[in-house]
Amino acid sequence: MSGSSIGQRLVLTSFGESHGKCVGAVLDGCPAGLEIQEKDIQKMLDQRKPGQSLVSTQRKEGDQVEIISGVFRGYTTGAPITMIIWNEDQDPRAYDELITKIRPGHSDYPAFVKYNEFNDYRGGGRFSGRLTATHVMGGAIARKLLKVTLGIETNSYTIKIGKILMNSKFETKMKTQIYDNEVRCPDKKIAEKMRNSILDARKHSDSLGGIIESTTINLPVGLGEPIFGSLESDISKAIYSIPSVKGVEFGSGFAGSELFGSENNDQYIVRGGKIITKTNNAGGILGGLSNGMPIVMRVAFKPASSIAKKQTTIDVKTKKPVTLQVHGRHDPCVVPRAPPVVDSLVSLVLADHALLGGFIKPTL
Amino acid sequence: MSGSSIGQRLVLTSFGESHGKCVGAVLDGCPAGLEIQEKDIQKMLDQRKPGQSLVSTQRKEGDQVEIISGVFRGYTTGAPITMIIWNEDQDPRAYDELITKIRPGHSDYPAFVKYNEFNDYRGGGRFSGRLTATHVMGGAIARKLLKVTLGIETNSYTIKIGKILMNSKFETKMKTQIYDNEVRCPDKKIAEKMRNSILDARKHSDSLGGIIESTTINLPVGLGEPIFGSLESDISKAIYSIPSVKGVEFGSGFAGSELFGSENNDQYIVRGGKIITKTNNAGGILGGLSNGMPIVMRVAFKPASSIAKKQTTIDVKTKKPVTLQVHGRHDPCVVPRAPPVVDSLVSLVLADHALLGGFIKPTL
Amino acid sequence: MSGSSIGQRLVLTSFGESHGKCVGAVLDGCPAGLEIQEKDIQKMLDQRKPGQSLVSTQRKEGDQVEIISGVFRGYTTGAPITMIIWNEDQDPRAYDELITKIRPGHSDYPAFVKYNEFNDYRGGGRFSGRLTATHVMGGAIARKLLKVTLGIETNSYTIKIGKILMNSKFETKMKTQIYDNEVRCPDKKIAEKMRNSILDARKHSDSLGGIIESTTINLPVGLGEPIFGSLESDISKAIYSIPSVKGVEFGSGFAGSELFGSENNDQYIVRGGKIITKTNNAGGILGGLSNGMPIVMRVAFKPASSIAKKQTTIDVKTKKPVTLQVHGRHDPCVVPRAPPVVDSLVSLVLADHALLGGFIKPTL
Amino acid sequence: MSGSSIGQRLVLTSFGESHGKCVGAVLDGCPAGLEIQEKDIQKMLDQRKPGQSLVSTQRKEGDQVEIISGVFRGYTTGAPITMIIWNEDQDPRAYDELITKIRPGHSDYPAFVKYNEFNDYRGGGRFSGRLTATHVMGGAIARKLLKVTLGIETNSYTIKIGKILMNSKFETKMKTQIYDNEVRCPDKKIAEKMRNSILDARKHSDSLGGIIESTTINLPVGLGEPIFGSLESDISKAIYSIPSVKGVEFGSGFAGSELFGSENNDQYIVRGGKIITKTNNAGGILGGLSNGMPIVMRVAFKPASSIAKKQTTIDVKTKKPVTLQVHGRHDPCVVPRAPPVVDSLVSLVLADHALLGGFIKPTL
Repeated sequence: MSGSSIGQRLVLTSFGESHGKCVGAVLDGCPAGLEIQEKDIQKMLDQRKPGQSLVSTQRKEGDQVEIISGVFRGYTTGAPITMIIWNEDQDPRAYDELITKIRPGHSDYPAFVKYNEFNDYRGGGRFSGRLTATHVMGGAIARKLLKVTLGIETNSYTIKIGKILMNSKFETKMKTQIYDNEVRCPDKKIAEKMRNSILDARKHSDSLGGIIESTTINLPVGLGEPIFGSLESDISKAIYSIPSVKGVEFGSGFAGSELFGSENNDQYIVRGGKIITKTNNAGGILGGLSNGMPIVMRVAFKPASSIAKKQTTIDVKTKKPVTLQVHGRHDPCVVPRAPPVVDSLVSLVLADHALLGGFIKPTL
Repeated sequence: MSGSSIGQRLVLTSFGESHGKCVGAVLDGCPAGLEIQEKDIQKMLDQRKPGQSLVSTQRKEGDQVEIISGVFRGYTTGAPITMIIWNEDQDPRAYDELITKIRPGHSDYPAFVKYNEFNDYRGGGRFSGRLTATHVMGGAIARKLLKVTLGIETNSYTIKIGKILMNSKFETKMKTQIYDNEVRCPDKKIAEKMRNSILDARKHSDSLGGIIESTTINLPVGLGEPIFGSLESDISKAIYSIPSVKGVEFGSGFAGSELFGSENNDQYIVRGGKIITKTNNAGGILGGLSNGMPIVMRVAFKPASSIAKKQTTIDVKTKKPVTLQVHGRHDPCVVPRAPPVVDSLVSLVLADHALLGGFIKPTL
Repeated sequence: MSGSSIGQRLVLTSFGESHGKCVGAVLDGCPAGLEIQEKDIQKMLDQRKPGQSLVSTQRKEGDQVEIISGVFRGYTTGAPITMIIWNEDQDPRAYDELITKIRPGHSDYPAFVKYNEFNDYRGGGRFSGRLTATHVMGGAIARKLLKVTLGIETNSYTIKIGKILMNSKFETKMKTQIYDNEVRCPDKKIAEKMRNSILDARKHSDSLGGIIESTTINLPVGLGEPIFGSLESDISKAIYSIPSVKGVEFGSGFAGSELFGSENNDQYIVRGGKIITKTNNAGGILGGLSNGMPIVMRVAFKPASSIAKKQTTIDVKTKKPVTLQVHGRHDPCVVPRAPPVVDSLVSLVLADHALLGGFIKPTL
Repeated sequence: MSGSSIGQRLVLTSFGESHGKCVGAVLDGCPAGLEIQEKDIQKMLDQRKPGQSLVSTQRKEGDQVEIISGVFRGYTTGAPITMIIWNEDQDPRAYDELITKIRPGHSDYPAFVKYNEFNDYRGGGRFSGRLTATHVMGGAIARKLLKVTLGIETNSYTIKIGKILMNSKFETKMKTQIYDNEVRCPDKKIAEKMRNSILDARKHSDSLGGIIESTTINLPVGLGEPIFGSLESDISKAIYSIPSVKGVEFGSGFAGSELFGSENNDQYIVRGGKIITKTNNAGGILGGLSNGMPIVMRVAFKPASSIAKKQTTIDVKTKKPVTLQVHGRHDPCVVPRAPPVVDSLVSLVLADHALLGGFIKPTL
């Protein structure tokens, strides 16, 4: 297993660079017999696509995905599914001064030390948020696989931008409202406030971070493996592959660490013959295994590092201080583009475990 | 790779059960030529051992580790290193009623569904916190390997118990104070308050959670692999293997998501010819790679699920409500025993990446 | 995955050294609910045990296996199964002169260069044939798993010792005769000739090699994965972990390369409603997948390297020629002890693929 | 790790189908700083390309490789290298009758059972020999990497076609003669005989098999890992991914199993201050590790299954006997096209181990 791949039984391999010829992904281990068309993937890619509104970058990218292997007559064959987005023309000169002026908050410096002058620095190369499109390519298929076989469905949405917090609790019926607004917050009023705070940050040549929450429903009991194959282990590993993520918590998470055991323990009850818990502080995972309750997770995104504001930094070759102004069309806040990426990574991990655990058959 | 193993080049495999014959670990891929004695491992195991004070369980466990392979004449040979702790006699009857009365907050229910009646329920079996002793076995070796080859050192410590927070910032010189008190908080005064809050919870047959912070110094630049091999991905995966962990954040983490980019970006400066950053909101990791600054991470622990308080639950066979009182000697707070476990897992991941990245040679 | 482990879903990790404290194995991923006792494993270990007859080494080793994790009340629990054989006292001085006098045909020289003076040279350390006992520990469980779930059964037997070849074709009914004689050849008359040729080699302080054939019956169609997960790939990888193996072929193998396609192609026919082939030149594997016919494989073993005959070699430190006589009680021919090892490795690979392919459920 | 990938540190993932849009490969883990151009890869692909002579298929395939990621300004960047060959128009109707008439010696039957009607049967889909082009894509890079860093070089050549055997021993200086003739045999006279025997088989609508030998020089001592990471294990696993391979042997191989230990043991001597062996019956590998001598391996290929001769088979749906004549332009013998494939797979495995063992640095 290399750093560009994730999964045991369902393996996603990501390739490509931000300003290279393409970005793409190979998904191996997907069962034969899943009906898949490019539009199934395109839909989620479009939700991630830049240039959709004022709250994200004004770059326009077509981001049209093409399936080039693994699907035959509209169905997966059991062979690796390869998907590609050809990068459209970009102006790589915009990044020329970044070669040695290391951008604060970016991978420029460690990448330069690790790969020397061989690093593909154009637009962040491999480290660009653009690579999350490859997560979505694989994730869209995993998400569909979970839906049609087990009814499992992951929905992710913005609950915080900067200091603006959605206080209300997400309920499944709110899922249709997520993409009704530019910031992907299911609470319309809060969404408007979030939007304004992003536009305000943009006006000041600055950026904002935020928090995505993700809820997955209809899980069978017993997905995951004890210890290192815990769902929390594998989901967090996947989520931390998103640039800008700096925190992941499940259920009551950091706040739960302030509670008493008698408060945080979720009481078991029986509803309709099914064992459930009254509360869900565990976020649907106990001992690393799904307990049948919704998996609830929150992801903290740092504010985007690329800001138009003047910053002081170092020239990595001369080791002298220099002034830097990051040009180009950057996202004042990446959070609104992240929900489909989080959906994708959670789905990939759950589908992998569903296959490992025998919940999904190798040929449908 | 199975659920009981972690690592690519340095692989830890954990085995054993809480109330079985033993708990143990195999560490494969450790370079030949590292001086290792049982006492190197025992020291860290003792820091994790129960029965040391009032703030943890009163169970006495000898927890004497024995190296049974991979070390010859005091040095590692390059062969897998196997370590075992033989479990001392326990009274398994204490757990008999838990077979069907599923304990809230525990793995009992999903484990029962997953493994049916074959699950080794005694003391939580594979899901017990006792298994973290196996993390420490491997981690003690990884920690020594990092120290003698690269000078890398991880120190973890308690910064919060329930609502009692250590406000002061950890500095390296404080590392000698961590084990001066029972709660493993380097601030003596706060430690006393934390201790009292744990004793108070115990008195009420209840439990508390808290937060561990972990700081790793002397990292070279460029450890980690882009995307799925990011240090954050691999560290969080490892940390979430600890039962009770419900949150992991790096650097400014969740709080950083409230900042502006211009506040959160760490400015590069040169000190003593070395490029460093003025602040460390990144927690030492950019683009998944180490940037040479200390890796700073925080881990949220839920309050221990096993409480003496009476709880209502379900009998998994009859699906009827039953009353449950968890007997036995349980930790009112597991946080004070967790610092060596966090040290261990961080060290295992960093040593693995140091080997993968060519920072440590396969034979010393 | 490290060099001491094999398998994807069912993972065997081997540990220990020839003259260290023990040899042992961890088998992870075995389904919960398989009835296992130490005697199930011991039976196959006894077939591999040295000191049973004149054709193998006169060393007596108790080789009593102990299960120390993963089995509870006589059934596997789904947790890793750890098994150990404690090494009995040996006289390590017998090997003292080998530290620098590198034995021809042994791993001594490359091991010395790779691990330097840290290598555990005692009795060959990790490179000893004794480590195949760890293959049998895991393999005995895999073999039972395949038998009780799918009826799959692997039988391996000697078909050649030196130049003495068993000409008759193995048939399933002959499986009961394999262990009737010391050389494990199902043809009694040939077995006697083989025995004599080994005793003759021993008399001349020399050694012999030979060929093991392995036949596996009752396979479902479709086990294996295209390309790198082909059954031939995974079986040969496993088999080449046996010291002394220098050749592996399937079906018509090397001889088949002399045939015309029209001769070598196996014609499909229907028997009892089942599609089978008239001949089995494919050895039961087409395109890397099982086709339902018996898997037939042959394994070439070189003559044992340890011979009592005087040999000239080099002192690795002085680089001067030296004379060497390998003392100790060595096998004049390892082939008679190999059938249970081959059975084990084939079973491990097939059980792994049966789990990956959904042919066996994760909990029985 | 999935069935479409191989390697631990240097990982090749193969994708595509014989008659789909493309065949391609992702090579992850290649060090940054290797000078690579498409023509480096094309050269080896051309050696494998069909339609070059009468001894192989008359299909013309352009097989122009395109690098679409991982190379920047002519050097590898450390990112995954993706390579594609777009399939030219083929007439898939030629294969229509094979959907249910299962071809003897082909994967048709097990693939149909495994993947049901979802299998991409066109031209053998994933099981086609065409997929070995993806091995060459990655292998050409691995081969160059080994050459420029360690001087390691693998050369593979035909030593047997049907019953025509090259008796002379291969020597390094003969490597320039390999591609001088259509059958890739370094002995010109034997090559002519081999050619005639293939043409003769073709005339009779039949096919031939043969043996490829592979010799690798300039190995450092100590490549490989004990037991399951043995070079023989990993090389054989890789080689068996080639369709038609039915046997793999190292050094004296099957013939060596007839020798006495005193004959087969290679005597150590010192030449020019370097420890070497007088003979090379070990084929350069002892205890799974390279001993510095050339790695010598032989690979048995069965005769090609696709023959124009009329064959009787079964219709998999009706289970009735049917007559089959495989149309299309097939290879009367695949052996002449196999040397670059064997070179590639051996190089991939050795480069992987060179990286694992610290012989090659992650950035050049």
